Amino acid sequence: MPSISLADVIAASERLEGVANRTPVLTARSLDEATGADRVLLKAENLQRVGAFKFRGAYNAVACLRPDERARGVATVSSGNHAQAVALAARLHEIPAVILMPEDAPTGKLAATRGYGAEVVLFDRYAEDREALLAALAQERGVVPIHPYDDLNVMAGQGTVALELIRDAGPIDVLLVCLGGGGLLSGCATAVAGLSPTTRVIGVEPEAGDDFVRSLAAGERVRIPVPRTIADGQQLPIPGELTFPIVQELVSEVVTVSDEEIIAAMRFLFERVKTVAEPSGACALAALLSGKVDVAGARVGVTISGGNVTAERFAELVG
Amino acid sequence: MPSISLADVIAASERLEGVANRTPVLTARSLDEATGADRVLLKAENLQRVGAFKFRGAYNAVACLRPDERARGVATVSSGNHAQAVALAARLHEIPAVILMPEDAPTGKLAATRGYGAEVVLFDRYAEDREALLAALAQERGVVPIHPYDDLNVMAGQGTVALELIRDAGPIDVLLVCLGGGGLLSGCATAVAGLSPTTRVIGVEPEAGDDFVRSLAAGERVRIPVPRTIADGQQLPIPGELTFPIVQELVSEVVTVSDEEIIAAMRFLFERVKTVAEPSGACALAALLSGKVDVAGARVGVTISGGNVTAERFAELVG
Repeated sequence: MPSISLADVIAASERLEGVANRTPVLTARSLDEATGADRVLLKAENLQRVGAFKFRGAYNAVACLRPDERARGVATVSSGNHAQAVALAARLHEIPAVILMPEDAPTGKLAATRGYGAEVVLFDRYAEDREALLAALAQERGVVPIHPYDDLNVMAGQGTVALELIRDAGPIDVLLVCLGGGGLLSGCATAVAGLSPTTRVIGVEPEAGDDFVRSLAAGERVRIPVPRTIADGQQLPIPGELTFPIVQELVSEVVTVSDEEIIAAMRFLFERVKTVAEPSGACALAALLSGKVDVAGARVGVTISGGNVTAERFAELVG
Repeated sequence: MPSISLADVIAASERLEGVANRTPVLTARSLDEATGADRVLLKAENLQRVGAFKFRGAYNAVACLRPDERARGVATVSSGNHAQAVALAARLHEIPAVILMPEDAPTGKLAATRGYGAEVVLFDRYAEDREALLAALAQERGVVPIHPYDDLNVMAGQGTVALELIRDAGPIDVLLVCLGGGGLLSGCATAVAGLSPTTRVIGVEPEAGDDFVRSLAAGERVRIPVPRTIADGQQLPIPGELTFPIVQELVSEVVTVSDEEIIAAMRFLFERVKTVAEPSGACALAALLSGKVDVAGARVGVTISGGNVTAERFAELVG
């Protein structure tokens, strides 16, 4: 299976230099106290362009296109943040983009994607197969698909999250990463394996969407029904073909969190850290706050992977 | 009337070095677009210790006490953030603190103040005179009162907000400052007058609590009924005795914002900047977003003065 290396992640970080935000590492005394960690280091990708880490992978993938591919334009399928990320990456490269989005995606995400100048095509996420739809669109229109996670350039781009965290905040003992299709986790695990091989890398997925936990137990990719969870960035039925083997090889463990634990983490971030995370963006911290991972005395990196939640939706969730 | 100078603000900044957070200056493309400014620079005092700028003034005031005063301990009256600030400043100096707080202050603020080890005494903000209560307490117990704004060391400490903003972000044409009793505004106006005399400094108070607007028009301090507004940090009936003359002399203008405009600013900060402001903390930005101040093409500093709002309260306000 084709894979990526630390060198690919470093090359991606050079392409992203001056384009992606070098997001801050947030800390809070209350967080160290609540978890028993020596220090919790939050990598604030909610402050990334388009409000999520997805910009890194999308931009890296578009930047790696050949001139003939750029001329054809790009397409993708995404529940939201990758959609905005591809739309913005395409605009920055001055090429057209077509985005397949679930018709129940948050309205703010639909509007933002259109706002970046992309064409949006809606589909029913519970009835239609997203991979087949993207393949059909690519064939019909000749556009180049940029898969949200099963794409080596996307995976390398997402790995720059861990690269930057370690470069900016120093060594870490544990890294907790939000896990949907596995793009962020496989990229970060690759970066960490190269930079800091003794660091434990842990993936966190929603309880209702435990396809990675099941797949790791089975030793092969297992498909589950499309999960119903508030974590709309992680409603995926099966691990990626390219991401799964990397997770198998490099990730210590995958744990799950309930929707209630995710809401508690969103609330903690709001009240104590004064920062906004969407449900999928708070799930790695949810695992830490609910005691799913032993971090006593450790330096712990945590991805806050996105912050795209409307005030109304936040109010519904915490109210 | 005794006053302060830029030198006092600089001396305060030296006392705060390594103790207060040097809070970041946040920017967002969406904010520049929404306002027509060249650049909007948000001084994120919601990320200050205790969640508000109040820590600066309180710490500076406690640090300036004589040894005999420290031995007696300190006291104050505050609707919340100054309470926590004095409590923490006292703890860091290992002296006792007694805090008078309105009985309808947000529960989170009451709990936090007690959490810093201070004794809390409750009063009815609509029935009792806070100044008289504090004076009585100081006399009974021999504690040293640290007024929330009418105290030269507090005012000098708050002025470090503007000092840091200009040092970190460079020259500004306009500075918008949240205004309650005038501690932050008088301190910031003093710093700006010394550093950058052509910068316009503008205070922003809630519509229902327009005691500064009325007082400036009258040419003397005017008392109004205790205002009812969501901006609980600005429910004050009259400008400070020490702060008012400085505002008269150095501030270009005071404008007001409605509760609805404040909520819109809190929502904007949440959705676009991914940061949390309490109502009083968002009021300077509210003036900018609602077009109360002409900032076309200008570099505009804005204080986000505090972030102490519970998720539940935020949900009530925006829901």
